[in-house]
Amino acid sequence: MTLWFYVALAAGLAAVLYGWLQSRSIMAADAGTDRMKEIASAIQEGANAYLKRQYTTIAMVGVVVVVLLVIAFRNWEVPLGFVIGAVLSGAAGFIGMKVSVQANVRTTQAASKSLAGGLAMAFKSGAVTGLLVVGLALIGVVVYYGLLTGAVGYEPSDRAVVDGLVALGFGASLISIFARLGGGIFTKGADVGGDMVGKVEAGIPEDDPRNAATIADNVGDNVGDCAGMAADLFETYAVTIVATMVLGAIYFSGLGYLGSIMLLPLAICAVCILASIAGTWFVKLGKGSTNIMGALYKGLIATGIFSLIGLAVAINWGLPNGFGVLDGAGAALGLATTVTGMDLFLCGVAGLGVTALIVVITEYYTGTGYRPVKSVAKSSESGHGTNVIQGLAVSLESTALPAITIIAGIILTFNLAGLYGIAIATTTMLALAGMIVALDAFGPVTDNAGGIAEMSDLPGSVRDTTDALDAVGNTTKAVTKGYAIGSAGLGALVLFAAYSEDLKYFAVNAAEGSVLQGVAVNFSIANPYVVVGLLFGGLLPFLFGGMSMMAVGRAAQSVVEEVRRQFREMPGIMKGEVKPDYSRAVDILTRAAIKEMVVPSMLPVLSPIVLLLVIWWIAGISSALAAVGAMLLGVIVTGLFVAISMTSGGGAWDNAKKYIEDGNHGGKGSEAHKAAVTGDTVGDPYKDTAGPAVNPMIKITNIVALLMLAVLAH
Amino acid sequence: MTLWFYVALAAGLAAVLYGWLQSRSIMAADAGTDRMKEIASAIQEGANAYLKRQYTTIAMVGVVVVVLLVIAFRNWEVPLGFVIGAVLSGAAGFIGMKVSVQANVRTTQAASKSLAGGLAMAFKSGAVTGLLVVGLALIGVVVYYGLLTGAVGYEPSDRAVVDGLVALGFGASLISIFARLGGGIFTKGADVGGDMVGKVEAGIPEDDPRNAATIADNVGDNVGDCAGMAADLFETYAVTIVATMVLGAIYFSGLGYLGSIMLLPLAICAVCILASIAGTWFVKLGKGSTNIMGALYKGLIATGIFSLIGLAVAINWGLPNGFGVLDGAGAALGLATTVTGMDLFLCGVAGLGVTALIVVITEYYTGTGYRPVKSVAKSSESGHGTNVIQGLAVSLESTALPAITIIAGIILTFNLAGLYGIAIATTTMLALAGMIVALDAFGPVTDNAGGIAEMSDLPGSVRDTTDALDAVGNTTKAVTKGYAIGSAGLGALVLFAAYSEDLKYFAVNAAEGSVLQGVAVNFSIANPYVVVGLLFGGLLPFLFGGMSMMAVGRAAQSVVEEVRRQFREMPGIMKGEVKPDYSRAVDILTRAAIKEMVVPSMLPVLSPIVLLLVIWWIAGISSALAAVGAMLLGVIVTGLFVAISMTSGGGAWDNAKKYIEDGNHGGKGSEAHKAAVTGDTVGDPYKDTAGPAVNPMIKITNIVALLMLAVLAH
Repeated sequence: MTLWFYVALAAGLAAVLYGWLQSRSIMAADAGTDRMKEIASAIQEGANAYLKRQYTTIAMVGVVVVVLLVIAFRNWEVPLGFVIGAVLSGAAGFIGMKVSVQANVRTTQAASKSLAGGLAMAFKSGAVTGLLVVGLALIGVVVYYGLLTGAVGYEPSDRAVVDGLVALGFGASLISIFARLGGGIFTKGADVGGDMVGKVEAGIPEDDPRNAATIADNVGDNVGDCAGMAADLFETYAVTIVATMVLGAIYFSGLGYLGSIMLLPLAICAVCILASIAGTWFVKLGKGSTNIMGALYKGLIATGIFSLIGLAVAINWGLPNGFGVLDGAGAALGLATTVTGMDLFLCGVAGLGVTALIVVITEYYTGTGYRPVKSVAKSSESGHGTNVIQGLAVSLESTALPAITIIAGIILTFNLAGLYGIAIATTTMLALAGMIVALDAFGPVTDNAGGIAEMSDLPGSVRDTTDALDAVGNTTKAVTKGYAIGSAGLGALVLFAAYSEDLKYFAVNAAEGSVLQGVAVNFSIANPYVVVGLLFGGLLPFLFGGMSMMAVGRAAQSVVEEVRRQFREMPGIMKGEVKPDYSRAVDILTRAAIKEMVVPSMLPVLSPIVLLLVIWWIAGISSALAAVGAMLLGVIVTGLFVAISMTSGGGAWDNAKKYIEDGNHGGKGSEAHKAAVTGDTVGDPYKDTAGPAVNPMIKITNIVALLMLAVLAH
Repeated sequence: MTLWFYVALAAGLAAVLYGWLQSRSIMAADAGTDRMKEIASAIQEGANAYLKRQYTTIAMVGVVVVVLLVIAFRNWEVPLGFVIGAVLSGAAGFIGMKVSVQANVRTTQAASKSLAGGLAMAFKSGAVTGLLVVGLALIGVVVYYGLLTGAVGYEPSDRAVVDGLVALGFGASLISIFARLGGGIFTKGADVGGDMVGKVEAGIPEDDPRNAATIADNVGDNVGDCAGMAADLFETYAVTIVATMVLGAIYFSGLGYLGSIMLLPLAICAVCILASIAGTWFVKLGKGSTNIMGALYKGLIATGIFSLIGLAVAINWGLPNGFGVLDGAGAALGLATTVTGMDLFLCGVAGLGVTALIVVITEYYTGTGYRPVKSVAKSSESGHGTNVIQGLAVSLESTALPAITIIAGIILTFNLAGLYGIAIATTTMLALAGMIVALDAFGPVTDNAGGIAEMSDLPGSVRDTTDALDAVGNTTKAVTKGYAIGSAGLGALVLFAAYSEDLKYFAVNAAEGSVLQGVAVNFSIANPYVVVGLLFGGLLPFLFGGMSMMAVGRAAQSVVEEVRRQFREMPGIMKGEVKPDYSRAVDILTRAAIKEMVVPSMLPVLSPIVLLLVIWWIAGISSALAAVGAMLLGVIVTGLFVAISMTSGGGAWDNAKKYIEDGNHGGKGSEAHKAAVTGDTVGDPYKDTAGPAVNPMIKITNIVALLMLAVLAH
């Protein structure tokens, strides 16, 4: 083990330590009045109850998967990798949620004193989640890689190492899709259902304590936007590191510095974790300033600059020849030119550049200061229909610039260092995840803080402060989702390359009698089975999106019926004399979300398997492998656009409503505002359920395909 | 020239003759009261004025294109082909519209006597448009092919023939995208704008004569849903025949029966035209029956059965060995097996099967009798937001089964006769276009008939009859769009094959010094430039959709302002004392639609050129050609899903509203109905502007790429 192994381990531990210290400081803060504590504890109970049931269900699926992996692989490396990935991914989400439900009420309390205090508390909570996500993921990969290559003594490019790491990614992905989808259905079921029966039918304001769904709505913010998002980014981060290591193991397997190449992604992640920790200190409101977004961006920009320096350090001392020529790398990567450390450094810089551009583009499409959100707000004046039309138009248009950014990133980094260059760019992009998740996880805390302020009858000025924080949260949430799906787009070729290079490897090295022996696969788009795969992959995000939108609709319906029932059977609720039964609403929604998450989650797991078997039966193994490979690209080609359009469109609708509430186009209560509320409702499942779940869906499809190859090779 | 050349010519002439006779019989029918005639003539004037301006604009663009083609090709075959395609495509739309604006008032008059009479009149008008579309397209291709190979004496596989036919397709496509988009923006701008200001602001019913936008709305049905749709299907039909002929010329160029192969798609279209004419006689309501959809389907099924028989005739007498083995075809197509006439027959049957399945699936997703529409109607009970969420969910889900049908069609026909088998299936699928267009063009006539009934103060029972006809029109319109885009999906590989086979041909045969000489293109999806092309192609339908939705929004806004102005400046309008200035509304909308259609239409024309030049500059001609090829598939992979989701979703929203108006969930005027009106408004630009325009967009991208290759080869 070289120095960078220990640096990566230390960085991971530093992230966890940072999280622990910060959460202690959160817990030490004032939690406000008894009424506030009472509400917060109701949210905590609900969130615990939901996550307990969710993790129980996932654990049952997980046990089945472990058994299947044991049967299929007959080794310990794959099942153990799966368990490590699953447990750590679950832990990151769970701990993040635990901190977030403590921080919400303390944010309300701090916001009652000052905006800067509220921001500091909410961001501190977000930073805990963010650094836990990257810290635990890095520790998981580092420790398991160390165990396999150090303690057990495998060569870095041994299949057992590759398969074990891929399985770790699979574990993380499987948790992630359940958590994203289950949490997404819960939170939007509560939000949409609560609004429908509260705002529309009963005519009471949002977060009114008389609405039995309010606690569920707040619980949803924590289990969906916090725990679900954390699991998603954990998975994206882990899968990207793993894919980059796998590609490194394949391309550089004959070269003397393979060990350094395997550690390079870990080194990049390590320096970026340290950069993220340093960056968190820059998130501060200047004296008298109210520019919350500016404060958050200061932290992000600082992280970016520190990461740039760290990247240079990692390249200079992580590669055998520093910024100089990597001997034999050009030929190994199939390029006509040499490849230098400088080339890889520039790929990393490109990854940071893609991140920066996606942040700017998302800000443009979802911020209240620019044309798109203003146009949606303006169109609300002429009614519900035109608001939705303009919102859909913005959502479709918002895909173009991110796609062009990703295309430019692919071309640039491929020309620097081939497919491995794209992998390094994607890794560097995701190495910032600690800071990005911090910005995102800040959102649900402020959302909760506002709800608690409303329910505790705190003065309106507190709600105004939390609302200001919450508005920024809408944009940062859209940014994270754009970032996650953008990394999937940039990484598309990396994941496909892992698949196609694996195939080449197995064609030579598969076990005697395996169908993969000597197989030659034609991946040309002139091969009809490639087109079949592209179309089949292309339909998955659409079908998946439709299924999850319908699931939200059904979950919302169950909430509506329960709240209606409570209003009917307990007339004292409306008069404020009787407290509604919050926990029953949480319970009903929990059941609905858990039930609804299973079928759509199985879609990406089963699709590669079914496609392989069907085409194998019709046209033989070679065509089947071509179709599955094309499917991996097809699911990204449509998934990228579906996900970006949903998340940006949803953000634009949400902020168009906020823009009107700030007094434009007639302000709150006007006809334009009613139309904007409709748009916001439509955007909810778009941006918080269907859209973000596309990202783990893409990853699962890819990971399952890789594992399928390993099974076939036996 | 063999027998089948003359049969095809005769069938084309028969279709035109049928159209002429039917339109004479329409003109001879009673046009109702003076008030009705007055309204109808206002619609005629408006439609004429719009089409005149649209065709003037297109003609200007067309002249520029002709000049560019003359400069680029320095021959007469390409520019002449372009002119033939453009003129005939424009003529089909123009004549169809002319008949439709005569038939609308006569349908109102006939519907005031009986449902069967109304159906007969409206369908007769649709059949004229349908048969003109296929008749003129077939005549155009047959005559130009005859001119080039007969009179001028080129070999059937000569490049001049191929380029000339492709240019004919380009002419048709260019008209088509302008007509689809301009007409779509006009009709939905009038519809959405008129509803917003009339129903929502002024509280007057749809088609109320006091609304200055009513005539424009009726004009829109004719210029968008009739003329625009006719141009679209003309283009789809012509491009598919041309692509099949081009593929035939490439694959069979060394074989003795090349002439028969070139005529095979023309023969299939000929027999199917005759089958469509025969099928029209089966569209009749049984005595006392009110099952309009059933009557239309009787006609479609009869056409299908006759086409099956005709297909057998065409194969048996069109191929040298009938249903037997085609000597050398297997090897020519790159297959390990022989290919028989029976195989090609079965490919045609598969094309008919795909058509049938797409009709059934579309009917399921947009008919009022099934789960999807009912679920949208039910979700309207809880508000505008949930209606839109459920509608979007249905629209996303509705893409899956058509995609799987197309995938199955590709696999089946490829296994029968390689890529040429897919081409024959696509040709047969489109050969039914005469009947399908008849079912579609029936819709705008009934829509107009209802408007005329409303404006002429005819008894409510007349409006009920036309409403019953109109509801069926919603589903048949969705069916046509699904059919058009489905054929593009099935034909994706055919268009791409034309591109890649052309490349192979030019690598050997390009002019001395051409960049295409000896070029070898790597179309593997492991090539990053292929992925770049897929992503770039993938973004086009999204960006195009966003742009056209925004264009509708702006056009609607201009209508709203004009109608508001008239209400304000002429207070007598609301009292019914003063007639609003209908023609000014038509004029304003005309300007808006013409202005808005140009930029989005240029997107697919310029995209292949820009992509080629940029990648050429960065990475050389070979990578650039790979990227452009992948772009052709990318635009279909996302375009298929975007278009189907928009057209089916829009149909579902429209019919959910109709379902509620039939007395379900509270009926007309209920809160559920208001929510359903919102969904319908959203669905309007989805299904009638953005969604259907994706189909010509795909074709243009492909055709421009083919012409680009021909230019590069010089």
